[in-house]
Amino acid sequence: MDFAIPPATAALLDRARAFMRTHVFPVEPTVLARGVAASDDIVASLRAAARAEGLWLPQMAREEGGLGLSLLDHGLLSEVLGHSPLGHLACNCQAPDAGNMEILHKYATPAQRERWLEPLLRGEIRSCFAMTEPDTAGSNPTQLRCAARLDGDDYVLDGRKWFTTGADGAAFAVVMAVTDPAAEAHRRASMLIVPTDTPGFRRVRNVPIFGHAGAGWDSHAELEFTACRVPKHSLLGPVHGGFVIAQERLGPGRIHHCMRWLGICERALGMMAARAATRELAPGERLGDKQIVQAWLAECRARIDAARLLVLRTAWLIDQHGFAAARDDISLIKFHVAEVLSEVLDRAIQVHGALGLTDDTVLAFFYTRERGARIYDGPDEVHKVAAARRILARHRPGREG
Amino acid sequence: MDFAIPPATAALLDRARAFMRTHVFPVEPTVLARGVAASDDIVASLRAAARAEGLWLPQMAREEGGLGLSLLDHGLLSEVLGHSPLGHLACNCQAPDAGNMEILHKYATPAQRERWLEPLLRGEIRSCFAMTEPDTAGSNPTQLRCAARLDGDDYVLDGRKWFTTGADGAAFAVVMAVTDPAAEAHRRASMLIVPTDTPGFRRVRNVPIFGHAGAGWDSHAELEFTACRVPKHSLLGPVHGGFVIAQERLGPGRIHHCMRWLGICERALGMMAARAATRELAPGERLGDKQIVQAWLAECRARIDAARLLVLRTAWLIDQHGFAAARDDISLIKFHVAEVLSEVLDRAIQVHGALGLTDDTVLAFFYTRERGARIYDGPDEVHKVAAARRILARHRPGREG
Amino acid sequence: MDFAIPPATAALLDRARAFMRTHVFPVEPTVLARGVAASDDIVASLRAAARAEGLWLPQMAREEGGLGLSLLDHGLLSEVLGHSPLGHLACNCQAPDAGNMEILHKYATPAQRERWLEPLLRGEIRSCFAMTEPDTAGSNPTQLRCAARLDGDDYVLDGRKWFTTGADGAAFAVVMAVTDPAAEAHRRASMLIVPTDTPGFRRVRNVPIFGHAGAGWDSHAELEFTACRVPKHSLLGPVHGGFVIAQERLGPGRIHHCMRWLGICERALGMMAARAATRELAPGERLGDKQIVQAWLAECRARIDAARLLVLRTAWLIDQHGFAAARDDISLIKFHVAEVLSEVLDRAIQVHGALGLTDDTVLAFFYTRERGARIYDGPDEVHKVAAARRILARHRPGREG
Amino acid sequence: MDFAIPPATAALLDRARAFMRTHVFPVEPTVLARGVAASDDIVASLRAAARAEGLWLPQMAREEGGLGLSLLDHGLLSEVLGHSPLGHLACNCQAPDAGNMEILHKYATPAQRERWLEPLLRGEIRSCFAMTEPDTAGSNPTQLRCAARLDGDDYVLDGRKWFTTGADGAAFAVVMAVTDPAAEAHRRASMLIVPTDTPGFRRVRNVPIFGHAGAGWDSHAELEFTACRVPKHSLLGPVHGGFVIAQERLGPGRIHHCMRWLGICERALGMMAARAATRELAPGERLGDKQIVQAWLAECRARIDAARLLVLRTAWLIDQHGFAAARDDISLIKFHVAEVLSEVLDRAIQVHGALGLTDDTVLAFFYTRERGARIYDGPDEVHKVAAARRILARHRPGREG
Repeated sequence: MDFAIPPATAALLDRARAFMRTHVFPVEPTVLARGVAASDDIVASLRAAARAEGLWLPQMAREEGGLGLSLLDHGLLSEVLGHSPLGHLACNCQAPDAGNMEILHKYATPAQRERWLEPLLRGEIRSCFAMTEPDTAGSNPTQLRCAARLDGDDYVLDGRKWFTTGADGAAFAVVMAVTDPAAEAHRRASMLIVPTDTPGFRRVRNVPIFGHAGAGWDSHAELEFTACRVPKHSLLGPVHGGFVIAQERLGPGRIHHCMRWLGICERALGMMAARAATRELAPGERLGDKQIVQAWLAECRARIDAARLLVLRTAWLIDQHGFAAARDDISLIKFHVAEVLSEVLDRAIQVHGALGLTDDTVLAFFYTRERGARIYDGPDEVHKVAAARRILARHRPGREG
Repeated sequence: MDFAIPPATAALLDRARAFMRTHVFPVEPTVLARGVAASDDIVASLRAAARAEGLWLPQMAREEGGLGLSLLDHGLLSEVLGHSPLGHLACNCQAPDAGNMEILHKYATPAQRERWLEPLLRGEIRSCFAMTEPDTAGSNPTQLRCAARLDGDDYVLDGRKWFTTGADGAAFAVVMAVTDPAAEAHRRASMLIVPTDTPGFRRVRNVPIFGHAGAGWDSHAELEFTACRVPKHSLLGPVHGGFVIAQERLGPGRIHHCMRWLGICERALGMMAARAATRELAPGERLGDKQIVQAWLAECRARIDAARLLVLRTAWLIDQHGFAAARDDISLIKFHVAEVLSEVLDRAIQVHGALGLTDDTVLAFFYTRERGARIYDGPDEVHKVAAARRILARHRPGREG
Repeated sequence: MDFAIPPATAALLDRARAFMRTHVFPVEPTVLARGVAASDDIVASLRAAARAEGLWLPQMAREEGGLGLSLLDHGLLSEVLGHSPLGHLACNCQAPDAGNMEILHKYATPAQRERWLEPLLRGEIRSCFAMTEPDTAGSNPTQLRCAARLDGDDYVLDGRKWFTTGADGAAFAVVMAVTDPAAEAHRRASMLIVPTDTPGFRRVRNVPIFGHAGAGWDSHAELEFTACRVPKHSLLGPVHGGFVIAQERLGPGRIHHCMRWLGICERALGMMAARAATRELAPGERLGDKQIVQAWLAECRARIDAARLLVLRTAWLIDQHGFAAARDDISLIKFHVAEVLSEVLDRAIQVHGALGLTDDTVLAFFYTRERGARIYDGPDEVHKVAAARRILARHRPGREG
Repeated sequence: MDFAIPPATAALLDRARAFMRTHVFPVEPTVLARGVAASDDIVASLRAAARAEGLWLPQMAREEGGLGLSLLDHGLLSEVLGHSPLGHLACNCQAPDAGNMEILHKYATPAQRERWLEPLLRGEIRSCFAMTEPDTAGSNPTQLRCAARLDGDDYVLDGRKWFTTGADGAAFAVVMAVTDPAAEAHRRASMLIVPTDTPGFRRVRNVPIFGHAGAGWDSHAELEFTACRVPKHSLLGPVHGGFVIAQERLGPGRIHHCMRWLGICERALGMMAARAATRELAPGERLGDKQIVQAWLAECRARIDAARLLVLRTAWLIDQHGFAAARDDISLIKFHVAEVLSEVLDRAIQVHGALGLTDDTVLAFFYTRERGARIYDGPDEVHKVAAARRILARHRPGREG
């Protein structure tokens, strides 16, 4: 075992920290005040800087113009980028585009590559991923309702989706739809690439979340498909292979979220410590002199550090042995890091007092935007049950512990 | 001891529940979507209905046109009104006006009464209360900086305030300002009535809170006073008596908040139960069949019920023996109910999944608007320390336990 | 609503507090060091004092020589007695005898009354209650295995029981045994009075609990019945009515436990406060000056006070409307108070540091003896699920909330 | 970064697991029932087996007959040994002897080595470490009272100690005593080797802890020194160097405790999973089918795994950069792992129900013996404050974050 960060990775991280300090943090308040959708100019210059600094597409293979990092190295980098809501966007590794790039990289036909993947990689278009539905339990694949019926050479989509991040302004959606209703649960659906200007594709609204409907990339849409017709070759990957692709996309996605959440935790802890160290309660007495605040700082420090190691070990395990070997660990980190994140943000706000409730710091943004961490990509409770079942299976009578 | 609700109170509560069901809940989604400030027509008709139903000014004495309730009865009513963010507003017992009415009722000169209190009671104007400052610790009165210097027959105010709820559109502010900087901590400040159109009074901005700057009553302003001159007779209550009045205002204010929070808890628990009882995970299987959700429901039920009794006993104690007798209990309920509220809202959102994050239910509104419950009117930690010090004082050597 | 304690009750509580102070606390260290079973002389003199002070049999009706208290008044008294592990024993209202007296009072034939109930009331004999079995889940009545087969004029018992409190030295056991294996779950068993000297009745061992096998009243036995024959008239109550009687016994039992636990909480909080107020860390600096300890004190104070009110309201509800009306509340207080108790004891020990681990205070005794509070009389989790199911039933579609 | 366990370490761990399975677990129930002090024969045969398996003195350098492990490897091994209360004892790396061996290894004169260290290494004698005092706060070195006055060629000790683990039956004590009362806090005390048969050395009692006074190694004594005279050459290490030695001893001691606690956690989690997987609630329904239990299993799994990595990284840091570099981390793991341990044991007991309270499993033993984990070697709260202060110091104005 070796906990040292190798020199090449350390250099990359230093570069990323410098990039955040020099380029991202200075513009963050402006972008958050205006909204990302109204900040195209700033985002464009961040992206130019990211390319110049060798931080473009960290999640992609070198052959796709990416950094070709191990998942472990990507995790370390992703934490640094996660210090700001703009870090990943600047490097073109933001959800949901990053996940779409991964499945396109793996499954796209040459024509799909050229039309969709390449402009995505270049940052010229955005995309979205339409899986979650408003009226069905996402954790149960047999509940999926949005259907794509084969009609001649076309698929005809009918149904509804929501929480489709970034649909507003996206060039295309990857849509998970039922193509074989009678099949067993995990063989019912396929993935289809649907350009957002296809007739029958309607963005009903950007769903308002904690009072914020958002716009552009920073929004979560409700979509409606009505007799929405796309040619057969819009299929992404094998027919009826939708669940496999969804899993392949969500597995790394969970790791990526965890890494980003740790960046948020670290940012919040730093702010909490800085506030406590400087806020005067009375001459000579600072908030950080108070034991309750001290206990929070120490507890957060321990929990973040422990959680980070769990995530990095999971990334390492995947690098070494593939996703299947890390299935348990992915469930564990999903809910564990989300809990740590919730707690750290809550305490950081409490330490900031009234200021913590305002948009004068980034904490309020993180607090509402990341409340979903315990819900999206499978609610924490579903992951706990899944992890527990595998633990229990190893303790059934007749099994070796 | 008798836990029965007397018939007259029970009838009042039934009336209030019917009022909420008939008048308030149906318009709530519209008002929350539009914003309160853009819903004057709806609020006006709610207020007419509240008058008609005998629910107007529940917090005021009969001589002021109010219901003349005991604090205990007001508590029970306030919980019912608290089920919606609009309940108190409809009955003209919303913060900060309710607190201002109370101190005007006690301290206003006849001229002040006529000019400010009476239109407030009639619901014709709104008011605000400017105490908290952006750069000083609210828990420490010696830190107060905003000053009112006597200059001839005028007070001249200079300084800043923030989190002045409802300043946007208010007719006047009650401003706490230092009038005797050299005095001991609790004799340094006075209360002044400052019309918001006084030259030198500037509303800098509505502070954006969790992404929402708000407007009108539903906003929290930052104010700046620059050589803002008001006549001497604008003084409310005795000169240098500001801290006493602030305490008198905050004490009942805390009780009122606790009662309202219990209403929010009850609403959230009802929604959680209804969601769990109806959300299908699979044919024949509902979310409420899951033990984790069941545990949350039972725990929330117990904690809300226990917290309510603690609040009601505190109200009863004040009714019987006055505020001084209940000082400990007020500290206890302030942090205890705020904690229960946080937990209940968090779980209610979790049970609703993605829906809980959206503005399609009222939970998201409560979640952000009431995160401040653990901060305003004294952070929970300050109340814990205050309560503990009094407990410890009773256990010093030489004291009877 | 009225939270005042009526004068007669207040006088009783004062008497009880004086009794605890004068008689019980002074002998408590000796009895705990020696063990109750080796302290017959002390217990006898405590009991004499309790009779003299009018505190004998508080739980029984006046016609049985008891105090004839409402459950609410008994609750208040029980808390005072609960300050010491010896309080209830001194007044002859200790488990399991108190519960046995109640069911004998209700169901005993005149012969059973004379032989068993009257000596119990006089404190001349002890009894035990054998329900829980080592290998079956107590929460599921269909799992009960210990059987009583009718053979001529006798019942013949075969089976095992454990956690039979006080079996060591008891004159008789009330045994719950299957008398109609084929009947539906709640009609399968009967209660039988079995003298402990009956052939075939064997006390296998006192089960060691946290390293302490105990003796006499302060022990929990494992029992074995092997062709253990008792006459038919040993039946207590109706044949096959065992579950009804068990429920009647456990319902009040849960209230009694909760009341006693609150007494333990109050004792622990007082010790925590006294320790914090006096323990010097450095000249002029006491443990109670530390904010972490202050937060614990305030939180415990609030939680205990809230929990007490919930228990008292439940007792009041039963006094007014009977047990059926309070079924939900009994489940809620069972787990809620047990949780508060665990937390308060844990923190009281932490505040005492190394001393808290030792038998030099009573905390260590309470910590191990009452860890079972979250398990006995139905694990907390079973009560949470039961309470939640009733909450959910009220929110099913087609029901009024 | 590399999370792989190297082959040589993996082989050692396999050997240790086999040793636990073959030798330790089978005798554990007998030893715990009898008490360690009455199990000399069994302990002797365990120790013979440990030597035979190459597991003797894992904490010592090869030159002392130990395994010469890195702290990281020792951590991994220590977790395996920690699965049973007997694991460390079997390998002669139990507290307090292991810590005494370390300081003797570093500071003993040749004569001290021969007389005390060598028999300790061979397992022929036992020792104890007398630092904690009954009436002074251990966290404050200026409070230390037990004094050793130089009188001719002797030191004369007067004072009291308690929680001196294993004093009963020990050949000698390392005693921390004030030798220069007027010096600054960290230069006041020295370490002295005091044979337990020295006149004036009195073991007052084995302090009963959770009802268990214990005996031999498994006891914590209260000691009294009355004009207890030892020759000057009994000094261990430099005169007035007691605090430095205490810190050197406690630092690794905290790591060792954390590693052992993780072993306990792992044992408890395994038992919890096995119980849940096998305990029938009804035909076909197992405890492990319940979501509440599933959530506990998953949460414990995540917290243990994260905590282990934090401990291992701390060990690695010490191996690479020495103790000074890991000061923060040692504080963090001390309280973090102690909290995880408390929670895991509590839940393991809850899952076992009544059985978990009994000595029929090892859980009850761990529950009481390890409640002290949050208190000894510095209460968790002291470590939190210490860690927080160092975090805050890095965020003071004018400092780089």
